[in-house]
Amino acid sequence: EDDFVFPPEALKKVEWDSRKSNFRNGISPSNPGENLVYRPLSLGDFDKGFVNLLSQLTKVGEVSREQFEKRFSSMKSSNGTYYVTVIEDIEKGEIIGAATLVVEQKFIHKCACRGRIEDVIVSNVYRGKQLGKLLVEALTLLGKALGCYKMSLECKEENFKFYESFGYSPDGQHFMIQRFKD
Amino acid sequence: EDDFVFPPEALKKVEWDSRKSNFRNGISPSNPGENLVYRPLSLGDFDKGFVNLLSQLTKVGEVSREQFEKRFSSMKSSNGTYYVTVIEDIEKGEIIGAATLVVEQKFIHKCACRGRIEDVIVSNVYRGKQLGKLLVEALTLLGKALGCYKMSLECKEENFKFYESFGYSPDGQHFMIQRFKD
Repeated sequence: EDDFVFPPEALKKVEWDSRKSNFRNGISPSNPGENLVYRPLSLGDFDKGFVNLLSQLTKVGEVSREQFEKRFSSMKSSNGTYYVTVIEDIEKGEIIGAATLVVEQKFIHKCACRGRIEDVIVSNVYRGKQLGKLLVEALTLLGKALGCYKMSLECKEENFKFYESFGYSPDGQHFMIQRFKD
Repeated sequence: EDDFVFPPEALKKVEWDSRKSNFRNGISPSNPGENLVYRPLSLGDFDKGFVNLLSQLTKVGEVSREQFEKRFSSMKSSNGTYYVTVIEDIEKGEIIGAATLVVEQKFIHKCACRGRIEDVIVSNVYRGKQLGKLLVEALTLLGKALGCYKMSLECKEENFKFYESFGYSPDGQHFMIQRFKD
């Protein structure tokens, strides 16, 4: 039996109809393409190349099965904070896309929640199939369905157009960081 | 007995010595000023004006005791995600400053954590006492002590100088949002 990082039913709350005209070929979360399935991250995805896929996004380093399972279990028991989703090519048994919605609990806005889209990646072999778009749109609508008052993401100015097509706008805030480790 | 949203011992991990020369009058997390105490948010802070203080930051709306307690308890049981801190004026029994460190668990960077500084506010009566600076610096160092590989925050360009003094730099990422509710 599959062990998912969040209940798969949550993805059924996504109201896709309003956005479906933005996608070619009837692509949707329940039908992301031939041999493709969109679902929550599962414990078994360690053996399906999930960690390897992330290394196309940024530095990942060595992650042991034990580290993966520990992190998975910690996310799973964090009160609806982590919605890590993946696209699997079920013919190959391989994870070829991933994106995470992080739901942050607040006291402001009547104890509201705020959603963030993080770590969106599609394997370079699968580019051009609207999968990046599908991931962003599905998580945006999931945030809405979960009651988030606001969704946000970080991006370079050259990607403004892409994200504007999902309803995002720059709000004049900039992003400042400081690194302690690689 | 106080019920804190995270263990007060965590704040003792902050290595203040490296930054103390940036503060006048020996101000530090363990000594934020006369009659002032810096500590984790406590369940009793509902009666000390915590919610009211947040309304100086943004829209908060009516928050009942029950809503506050539910959110508090949900944050507390979220596996070290929420480090909500406050400054209390113990003479008045009033919360006069607050700031939150949100620790997000990742798979990238060897299952690292990433810290975000959120919802920093100092009551306007207490401005000019280095308290905003104290809150940002304490949470930045707390993130470091907790092992975050990266810390970040959102700000307007006019505040770059302020945050640069804590070691933050703009990283060329912009911030895009979409609102579903007020």
